[in-house]
Amino acid sequence: MPETPYLLIDMAKTRVNIQAMAEIAEANGVRLRPHTKTHKLPSLAKRQMEAGAVGITVAKISEAEVMAQHGIEDIFVAYPLVTESKVERAVELSRTIRLIVGADSYEGARKLSDIAGRHGHVLNVRLEVDTGFKRTGVPYDEAVALADQINRLPHLSLTGIYTFRGATIDGQATLDLERAGIEEGQLMVKLADEMRNQGISITDVSVGSTPTGRYAAGVRGVTEIRPGTYIFNDRMQAKLGVSTLDECAAAIVTTVVSRPAADYCIVDGGSKTFATDVQPGTEPLQLKGFGHIVEAPDAVLERLSEEHGIIRLAPHHPFRVGDRLHIIPNHICSTLNLHNNVYLADGELIDKVPVLARGMLE
Amino acid sequence: MPETPYLLIDMAKTRVNIQAMAEIAEANGVRLRPHTKTHKLPSLAKRQMEAGAVGITVAKISEAEVMAQHGIEDIFVAYPLVTESKVERAVELSRTIRLIVGADSYEGARKLSDIAGRHGHVLNVRLEVDTGFKRTGVPYDEAVALADQINRLPHLSLTGIYTFRGATIDGQATLDLERAGIEEGQLMVKLADEMRNQGISITDVSVGSTPTGRYAAGVRGVTEIRPGTYIFNDRMQAKLGVSTLDECAAAIVTTVVSRPAADYCIVDGGSKTFATDVQPGTEPLQLKGFGHIVEAPDAVLERLSEEHGIIRLAPHHPFRVGDRLHIIPNHICSTLNLHNNVYLADGELIDKVPVLARGMLE
Repeated sequence: MPETPYLLIDMAKTRVNIQAMAEIAEANGVRLRPHTKTHKLPSLAKRQMEAGAVGITVAKISEAEVMAQHGIEDIFVAYPLVTESKVERAVELSRTIRLIVGADSYEGARKLSDIAGRHGHVLNVRLEVDTGFKRTGVPYDEAVALADQINRLPHLSLTGIYTFRGATIDGQATLDLERAGIEEGQLMVKLADEMRNQGISITDVSVGSTPTGRYAAGVRGVTEIRPGTYIFNDRMQAKLGVSTLDECAAAIVTTVVSRPAADYCIVDGGSKTFATDVQPGTEPLQLKGFGHIVEAPDAVLERLSEEHGIIRLAPHHPFRVGDRLHIIPNHICSTLNLHNNVYLADGELIDKVPVLARGMLE
Repeated sequence: MPETPYLLIDMAKTRVNIQAMAEIAEANGVRLRPHTKTHKLPSLAKRQMEAGAVGITVAKISEAEVMAQHGIEDIFVAYPLVTESKVERAVELSRTIRLIVGADSYEGARKLSDIAGRHGHVLNVRLEVDTGFKRTGVPYDEAVALADQINRLPHLSLTGIYTFRGATIDGQATLDLERAGIEEGQLMVKLADEMRNQGISITDVSVGSTPTGRYAAGVRGVTEIRPGTYIFNDRMQAKLGVSTLDECAAAIVTTVVSRPAADYCIVDGGSKTFATDVQPGTEPLQLKGFGHIVEAPDAVLERLSEEHGIIRLAPHHPFRVGDRLHIIPNHICSTLNLHNNVYLADGELIDKVPVLARGMLE
């Protein structure tokens, strides 16, 4: 058995999750381009492609490089590349695979075009649009004008538009995933039509996250969805109703290292093991604690310091020093990024696998 | 220039910080055993030793192994080791360096003794005591009895007691660092005296964090302090008044990748780059946002997603796409753990250094 704490992935559940989203995409006649930030593993990206994905999505050129080195040949970097060295790397990579990069400003796009031109190259680009999440993305009302400008740049091929909205409406977190997904799709289809009316050729209308992708996929005119978390699911998705807790394929295995009082125990996983970006108690999910404890669903992983997880227990709960607990994290993507290795369990076999695209910042 | 985002460490400030804590320890006649979780770098551990530290503190046997491989010969693993394989590794390591391990339960201590005995070995152990933080540590009132039990185990040498309390009093966060530190020291000295009265030899009385160490060091009978964060300081320490922001030696360098509206911009560092364990708005610090933006002290790093930092700006602030911003993180220890490499800046030189003991979970 591996030393705790470690991240254990149930491959049987993972395969079911991969297949389920592939079927949603197929049933709706849209392409599936999963965001691989959730697993950061070329081997799982390949399984997604085998199940029908047309390519993958990443956030960093460094992630694209790792995935390409391991045989993935169609990659969308869904992030604005604005520095010269990163654009150089994108141009280089796009000589060997089909690469698409994001842009959300004219100055960023011009840099892409200038550098591509310097190498006698044309880069595929998609314009990122803000549909209310207020992160990157050109403001919705300015998108057609910017698309027109980008379309005139000589060394870019504007192939589509994309957005990320997640489980939000008008910038507010929501539990109405169907409305969020449908609105997201409709907003983007409307925009693509306006662009086409201006003579701008838009092939790809790319939307959707794990909570909203299935609804956005049903909007006529949407061509692609980019969910990520669905491959494992997590406690946040279960609370949203997107999966059950039993469909969560990834858990942290910890050991009880201390049982100092009747009503709490300490496990050997803290904030170096569990991500803290999805905090307990916040609206609208109001998760209790930092994870779901499989062996004690009513117990609460109440506090984390770097190496300690403090679990509030019903008085005199039988947990003892040395017991192993499986804990489904609130947010699997950021949690997995903390782990140098994960353990893939397939039947009796447990395979230790380095997370090749983890920690990629550049 | 390195690609952003990256963690930049100012070595001139780091040297000043190392020296300052060494002087505090010396002036108070206590030993300094810094917690190296903050930097996870053998090269910086050596600088701390050269400045007068008697050894180092780590949280994991895996961290101890890395530090020992790089020449550190006196290491305290301040964590209860309760699994057989980890204890085996501790016994192995203690053949080549001076190793001390933590224990906070009789069953854990017995396992240490049994396994050490199997190898004809004696392990140095310190008993962890809870002085109100309610994490690991035997409850204060049970500590003398447990010390007595551990003292009778044949293959352990009980050399001391230790606690971690940080900036808390009775389990509540406090700004009264002097009182917190003095109380922590007094509680531990009293306990050591009670143990000695029972015939238990206690050499080391080890306490103290960066905020409280300087006060605890002044309590007669305290023999050792274990601060960690002081080597770099961070925004939390600055808000506590332990350092100034200018004495913070570590910052994240980010690039503005999007400027979609008058009142915010997006940088290329999110929750994969900045730790989220010290949240904005929580008592008593009430930090605004996830970091201090050196180039715009009034701007607020308001939201993070994995690859995006959303910065609220005064309207029409001049930041543009491509600008580089230096951001002092709320909590440097957990932030550094996210980075595979850090960049040490010494005058004009910038040296890329792998964080050898990062991500150590086992």
